[in-house]
Amino acid sequence: MMQVVKIGLLGLGTVGSGVIQILEQNANDIQNRSLSQIKVSKVLVRNLKAPRSIAGDFTLTDQAADVLTDPDISIVVEVMGGIEPAKTYILEAFKQGKNVVTANKDLLALHGQELLDAAKEAGKDLYFEASVAGGIPIIAALKQSLAGNRISEVLGIINGTTNYILTAMTEQGRDYQEVLKEAQELGYAEADPTADVDGLDAARKLAILASIAFNSRVTVNDVYVEGIAKITSEDIAYARELNSTIKLLAVAKAQADGIEVRVHPAFVPDNHPLAAVSGVFNAIYVVGDAVGETMFYGRGAGSLPTGSAVVSDIIQVVRNINADSTANINCTCYNELAIKSEQDFKSAFYIRLRVKDEPRVLATLALLFAEAGVSFASIIQKQKKRQEAEIVLVTHPTQESCLREALDSVRAYSKVLSIHNVIRFESGEHYD
Amino acid sequence: MMQVVKIGLLGLGTVGSGVIQILEQNANDIQNRSLSQIKVSKVLVRNLKAPRSIAGDFTLTDQAADVLTDPDISIVVEVMGGIEPAKTYILEAFKQGKNVVTANKDLLALHGQELLDAAKEAGKDLYFEASVAGGIPIIAALKQSLAGNRISEVLGIINGTTNYILTAMTEQGRDYQEVLKEAQELGYAEADPTADVDGLDAARKLAILASIAFNSRVTVNDVYVEGIAKITSEDIAYARELNSTIKLLAVAKAQADGIEVRVHPAFVPDNHPLAAVSGVFNAIYVVGDAVGETMFYGRGAGSLPTGSAVVSDIIQVVRNINADSTANINCTCYNELAIKSEQDFKSAFYIRLRVKDEPRVLATLALLFAEAGVSFASIIQKQKKRQEAEIVLVTHPTQESCLREALDSVRAYSKVLSIHNVIRFESGEHYD
Repeated sequence: MMQVVKIGLLGLGTVGSGVIQILEQNANDIQNRSLSQIKVSKVLVRNLKAPRSIAGDFTLTDQAADVLTDPDISIVVEVMGGIEPAKTYILEAFKQGKNVVTANKDLLALHGQELLDAAKEAGKDLYFEASVAGGIPIIAALKQSLAGNRISEVLGIINGTTNYILTAMTEQGRDYQEVLKEAQELGYAEADPTADVDGLDAARKLAILASIAFNSRVTVNDVYVEGIAKITSEDIAYARELNSTIKLLAVAKAQADGIEVRVHPAFVPDNHPLAAVSGVFNAIYVVGDAVGETMFYGRGAGSLPTGSAVVSDIIQVVRNINADSTANINCTCYNELAIKSEQDFKSAFYIRLRVKDEPRVLATLALLFAEAGVSFASIIQKQKKRQEAEIVLVTHPTQESCLREALDSVRAYSKVLSIHNVIRFESGEHYD
Repeated sequence: MMQVVKIGLLGLGTVGSGVIQILEQNANDIQNRSLSQIKVSKVLVRNLKAPRSIAGDFTLTDQAADVLTDPDISIVVEVMGGIEPAKTYILEAFKQGKNVVTANKDLLALHGQELLDAAKEAGKDLYFEASVAGGIPIIAALKQSLAGNRISEVLGIINGTTNYILTAMTEQGRDYQEVLKEAQELGYAEADPTADVDGLDAARKLAILASIAFNSRVTVNDVYVEGIAKITSEDIAYARELNSTIKLLAVAKAQADGIEVRVHPAFVPDNHPLAAVSGVFNAIYVVGDAVGETMFYGRGAGSLPTGSAVVSDIIQVVRNINADSTANINCTCYNELAIKSEQDFKSAFYIRLRVKDEPRVLATLALLFAEAGVSFASIIQKQKKRQEAEIVLVTHPTQESCLREALDSVRAYSKVLSIHNVIRFESGEHYD
């Protein structure tokens, strides 16, 4: 007689529907792998009367308590998203002695510590693979498969919308606004694309990744964020000239003086494995002291890819329930590392500016940068109009405070007409 | 008072030394992650008097029983390699109530079932992440993180030696023999490179991967194998012309009529994520019905990358010991799927041949192929000498038996001077 494990779902949107579909279409394999029959018994929805494309042998309810207090339910799967009421429901689930699987990056990036503490206190599992990069198993990799390593850096392309936009700009030479509009029409970008294009979505995921990679709590508020709205087709063209590709990169580095966590557009060298990650795909590049460079690639969003992560988490929790070993790996933040201020970040920079095309302008510019301690790896100068030149400077790696000081002097220099863009180079410390 | 878990090592070669180094350099993190002090207490070596670069607080012994019957040792780590005596030692370890972590692909690819059965009977763990693709956590991904999926295919670059050779041939236009010699001098290829260049090493790893991906036992003897020794710089040049890269590919597909498992050189389209995997790096591309396409990338060999997998496995086993939940996930082969014969494989093919440069030769060739049911996607013809032309044919996907029938007719055709090479195209069923 095979054991039955009952699941309660909070939410029946894109991810929730994917979870139900996968549990159904792979029921036989899932039963063999978990040595249990996994049954969705109750689903919390906002509106009981809304039309649904998904049906099954479960009860719909609009009362959270119906799910949270059902003594037959062992695992609560939170796929409603947002901070509240999701947070209250998850905490209540632990109080009621349930295990929790969630896909909620917003919540974890802000209140991960509190939720993991509650799981520990209850002696239950909190699994959240689906919260970062959809179906890519990066959380399990960091918590378990790379556990022998000291991780020094994590570089991620973890927002599909911006990667779709930047890929289309790169491959088709088109402008940001035009591609964004197309992405919205195709459903790859939201009507309000702010959280994606401004980098906030990636920052949330990065906070989760950095916390696990460095075993020290990082919240979304710790992450320095710049979006992609300022990237133009000119920058994209220069990237090609510099054998690079512009990506919205999520960067986490553990250094002697603290953790650097930042999301921003970056020039990635074309021979770096992240450079070839195109369209809506995600990838996370991880460097560990033993394993060296690794990369995890796949679909970062969507009903089934995200559902894949949720269902695989459910299977792990069921295995843990069967072995009576829940709460074996929850919070792993045993360090308390400082978060570095952006003044102390270190990167090489691309700087594109317009100057009056007069003698000694470039020499003066070089001097202004040198005075702030910034030197150049390469320089491109192009005549743009009569008496106007465009200059692209690529610096050697420099501390960000020095660069900002240099830019202040440059901005004050009368021959400089405008600074169009300043974009970091990033390839990871350990890449050559 | 932190629990101490004692480890016995069988072997102190490249991987064993890496394991000891990692346990030492990351002792603090490993203790925090496993909530235990992990101590190597005994190490089995062949020659007690051999000079060693690694030292530590452990006892060397040349008697396996010293390790296997030590009641204080909870985990036996087998890093000696080969079939015997490794197999006997592992079986004895289970009899003695120990958990086992191994990096031994030769053994698992042949006797995996027997070992996993022994682990189950003993109620102990058998972990073997390091047996495939070094530090890349592909076993855990297939057994756990992708457990919600039905996996349809696994394509791997899982032999660093051949990938180094093919990359050098591709990037530098050099010949096989010359690059092989260089690889031997650099230590990337063995003095006897047979197991690598003939594809056997990759076949062993593929047998392990396919068994787990499809939940059905596949042994190395089931795998169809072709090596890379026949690849010439001419083939490499044509690959470029056809926007492809030649890789030694390990291919496993689950189809309605059985499992296809094969290792051979293949043309991989340049826009496929595997095409950019260069040098000694490994990558495994996995397609699941829910997750879609994923890829796992990293170093497939070496003391520390392989040690990373072994140590991470040790940490998992320690976590299981602490939770009293060993033997929770061992053998996952609940299916018994047929292994397809090579006659039934389906691929597109590249065929390079020399013909007399006379009228109607190409038309006759096309006819001979058509009679066997093989048609062409593209044709390249080049004048090579007076009255001699080289023809490259790329077929549409065809059943291998049809292709072989066609090649028999072509070989018998008097205008054909020689068939230089026949190489499969592979991009995965689900790739577009």
